[in-house]
Amino acid sequence: MSNSAPLVIIFPIYSGVTQLDFTAPYQFFSRLPGVKPVVASVDGEPITADGLTFADLIPLEEVDRCDVLCVPGGFGCTDAIQDPRYLTAIQTLAESARYVTSVCTGSLILGAAGLLEGKRAACHWAWREFLSLFGAIPDPGRVVRDGNIITGGGVTAGIDFALTLAAELTDPTIAQSVQLGLEYAPAPPFNAGTPDRAPADVLARVRSLMAKTASKRRAALERCALLVRSEK
Amino acid sequence: MSNSAPLVIIFPIYSGVTQLDFTAPYQFFSRLPGVKPVVASVDGEPITADGLTFADLIPLEEVDRCDVLCVPGGFGCTDAIQDPRYLTAIQTLAESARYVTSVCTGSLILGAAGLLEGKRAACHWAWREFLSLFGAIPDPGRVVRDGNIITGGGVTAGIDFALTLAAELTDPTIAQSVQLGLEYAPAPPFNAGTPDRAPADVLARVRSLMAKTASKRRAALERCALLVRSEK
Repeated sequence: MSNSAPLVIIFPIYSGVTQLDFTAPYQFFSRLPGVKPVVASVDGEPITADGLTFADLIPLEEVDRCDVLCVPGGFGCTDAIQDPRYLTAIQTLAESARYVTSVCTGSLILGAAGLLEGKRAACHWAWREFLSLFGAIPDPGRVVRDGNIITGGGVTAGIDFALTLAAELTDPTIAQSVQLGLEYAPAPPFNAGTPDRAPADVLARVRSLMAKTASKRRAALERCALLVRSEK
Repeated sequence: MSNSAPLVIIFPIYSGVTQLDFTAPYQFFSRLPGVKPVVASVDGEPITADGLTFADLIPLEEVDRCDVLCVPGGFGCTDAIQDPRYLTAIQTLAESARYVTSVCTGSLILGAAGLLEGKRAACHWAWREFLSLFGAIPDPGRVVRDGNIITGGGVTAGIDFALTLAAELTDPTIAQSVQLGLEYAPAPPFNAGTPDRAPADVLARVRSLMAKTASKRRAALERCALLVRSEK
């Protein structure tokens, strides 16, 4: 592999992306021999995410192909879906990609790009049901595979997704070497990472915080879905 | 807490930092009410880490205090230790901090700053033994606490560290809410995250890759330790 062109993994980011959705997989992929992770944005403009600014980005318009398309999620996903330049780039890149992938609500963007019709996909647990607006089949798996589409669940699922894909792109020995190098032997101090495991008061608190934006979010996604379907 | 000044968590980064060492804890802390994570560098210069560029950083010189000092690791740690402006900033910030913390080889920087004398500390497994050069006691724990010093093991241990500290800074319900929001219910596809769990061929491969730089690394850290001790 070292003598051929590197496999290019594109992360198309946008304002309001959740940075860990791409920084975690990026860290894992950056340790793989023969693989080149690239972060891109519309016009190559810097992106501020949760207070961090990512600069020196590649303009999405200048990327004409990739081996892996990996779309991260975030509260900005509904705005990204409504940006025709962003969504067109996703569609174009998906055509060339050997794997079309996402982390968290990035799967809603894949859905809006028309890439998940009839496909099973993962998503952040609180947004998962919205996948069906785009004809996809919500799947509660942490890493879900349907043909060449591999999607991860919410945020930190991006690590398990990255290791899964790393083994596909290289081999299980190399993938595990990266796992060892990054000491990925998780030991969460609490067991609250999913709605069915979290204590009742924790789940109630998160649902209450989310309720404030849920109707706005649903309305935005329904508009997106209408738009996507009317264009067919 | 919402009516008082936010708790400031400083991540002092440097060229050659491992980005996930700070991006992962940053993501968790950024979801905590009443907590303000801040990324700083010498002169506020942008830092490129593993191909990602972080911009809009706060000049370390302009930060006069913090509630939590969190030093990330990376291959650049030996250079950072040898930069007097960086190391002095670490020492100054540690004086004001309620918690002095690190992820991965960030503990070697704490050690070089004279902050770990006689203290137990975690570090990336491959670098852990070097802690003793600085008078610290290497501890194989994933998250290690000794008084107000909390250190995490290699790279991804930063997530477990962050959740542990989040519960201290707020309370366990809020920490678990962040865990649920970031869907941290890890499910690694392989069990190779520590030397004792990794298959023999995986460990041999990683050790062989590391052997290429081990003697250079050891020499650099021994020089740092001599320098630190001669200044006492």
